[in-house]
Amino acid sequence: MRGVVLHGPGDIRVEDRPDPEIVEPTDAIIRVTAACVCGSDLWPYRGIDRGDGPSPMGHEYVGVVERVGDQVGTIKVGDFVVGSFFASDNTCEICQAGYQSRCVHAQPIGVFGTQAQYARIPLADGTLVATPGQPDADLVPSLLAASDVLGTGWFAAVAAEAGPGKTVAVVGDGAVGLLGVLAARYLGAERVIIFSRHADRQKLAADFGATDVITERGDQGVAQLKELTNGLGAHSVIEAVGTQESMMQAIRSTRPGGHVGYVGVSHDVQLPGEELFFSGVHLHGGPAPVRRFLPRLIELIWDRRIDPGKAFDLDLPLEQAAEGYRAMDERRAIKTLLRPQH
Amino acid sequence: MRGVVLHGPGDIRVEDRPDPEIVEPTDAIIRVTAACVCGSDLWPYRGIDRGDGPSPMGHEYVGVVERVGDQVGTIKVGDFVVGSFFASDNTCEICQAGYQSRCVHAQPIGVFGTQAQYARIPLADGTLVATPGQPDADLVPSLLAASDVLGTGWFAAVAAEAGPGKTVAVVGDGAVGLLGVLAARYLGAERVIIFSRHADRQKLAADFGATDVITERGDQGVAQLKELTNGLGAHSVIEAVGTQESMMQAIRSTRPGGHVGYVGVSHDVQLPGEELFFSGVHLHGGPAPVRRFLPRLIELIWDRRIDPGKAFDLDLPLEQAAEGYRAMDERRAIKTLLRPQH
Repeated sequence: MRGVVLHGPGDIRVEDRPDPEIVEPTDAIIRVTAACVCGSDLWPYRGIDRGDGPSPMGHEYVGVVERVGDQVGTIKVGDFVVGSFFASDNTCEICQAGYQSRCVHAQPIGVFGTQAQYARIPLADGTLVATPGQPDADLVPSLLAASDVLGTGWFAAVAAEAGPGKTVAVVGDGAVGLLGVLAARYLGAERVIIFSRHADRQKLAADFGATDVITERGDQGVAQLKELTNGLGAHSVIEAVGTQESMMQAIRSTRPGGHVGYVGVSHDVQLPGEELFFSGVHLHGGPAPVRRFLPRLIELIWDRRIDPGKAFDLDLPLEQAAEGYRAMDERRAIKTLLRPQH
Repeated sequence: MRGVVLHGPGDIRVEDRPDPEIVEPTDAIIRVTAACVCGSDLWPYRGIDRGDGPSPMGHEYVGVVERVGDQVGTIKVGDFVVGSFFASDNTCEICQAGYQSRCVHAQPIGVFGTQAQYARIPLADGTLVATPGQPDADLVPSLLAASDVLGTGWFAAVAAEAGPGKTVAVVGDGAVGLLGVLAARYLGAERVIIFSRHADRQKLAADFGATDVITERGDQGVAQLKELTNGLGAHSVIEAVGTQESMMQAIRSTRPGGHVGYVGVSHDVQLPGEELFFSGVHLHGGPAPVRRFLPRLIELIWDRRIDPGKAFDLDLPLEQAAEGYRAMDERRAIKTLLRPQH
């Protein structure tokens, strides 16, 4: 099959890879309808977090089930499915508490590389959720978004306790932050303020329900946010970047007793204990347990009540993956969708 | 009046200080019935966090109202009162959300020094809570505990979401940690595990409802906790020390999706972002908004349903404050109560 492989910083190639096989009886093989490039894929693309040797890429996916192992019970051949970027059994105590990304049997899907024609998905019954039928073509980008960026933005909004009467601030105007705006509004937030200095992203944020834009960042951004919130800060802050600056901006933007939901994968961050202590904020985040939210998100998309697929502003055949990475790296695209040919 | 003053590391003196006066019309002057030495008082006593020059000491107190300013409405002369270690208006948006220690008009009581015969309490209506009448003598230590250590331990247990069916771990066997045990049990926790290597503290923890003791600390302590919790960690962890080691022990003792309530005043702590991110825990803490809990805690004490005063194992006249500090510093006492003479 054809699949995307990272050979070194900036060196994305689409090449022949072995077809995936059923290895465990709980596996499913899916024919990938669409995959995409994640903001977190840009870290190794930029030479940060790179493993040794060539790496298959991709952990977001929707597709049609081709084969299932003997112990797969609920997922059936022919189902159109959406899955999370962590495989989970969805039955252990941690899964049942809603933290499937930390399932006691969790496996990162990234190691399999879903930017490919086919993918092996472990623990299929606990990981995949079937849609009510075969989706219309225009729903595919939104269902794909549910696999990670929407699920992650949603988790961030829930972790930040966005809800009615709340003012929510969003640090990070990538796809996750933008879909955090959508989630916060859907959850009832009264006001959603995004930090962004890019006109295209400000526009999309407004489409998703943002009420205010702050173009400054860091402590100047915090000062502007305080001005907008009676000097107190936001009730809820979504952090969707993962740097020291963005984390401190998020914490400082939150009022005492407020909530930070942080989902940007942490890079070289050290949180100063004393400042955090006296901030009095709640901090919660990590790899989003997308599986918790998938049934609801699929329903909202199926019923066309939300349209997260708008976050994809570049739609390419899989063979042009290198351009898809480049465009995101250079901020010419917010989020690239990749379509394998079959 | 007589009051405790710290002149330098280890140099506690009881000396004449000016009688406090009404300065703002919202002030009250109280005749201190009992004060005490806080674990946090030991930081400057040990030469850490010391300000310049002699410092009046103490921020925990119960007493009888002697005088009130013109704008004090609900607190009356003659009331027996308990107050928090932060003055608060109890009306601003932050107070109303339950974060009185971060009131927009918050003032730390410590600067006034309640280890003294009298104390000025700003924002009396918002800071002080009157008991239903003059307390029996044996209730005084428990009411004093509500002023800080009980209120702080309670907040930690609430921040850690201790409750029915939960396993709670407690890092720190000082008075706050021990009263965190009491709070967790009162809130319904099924199992409360304390990390402690001191027999007297283990005994008191058991009196307060601890079900298990772990004598190891750091990563070995975490390993033992995991053994007791099916490999998963505790649902809720109370952190009541404030060091790098204790914070990491608390975070690592918590299962993914679990809650850390941290109240040890943070000293030289840097939380590694990546580990925190992948831990998937909730983190909440800071200076406890004791005022939120005071009405309920006073009621529980008044009705003799809890007996937090047992945490005081040394009861001295104010004039012997120096010995009270020494005993706590040398761990001969868990918590020292100081009684001014009038």
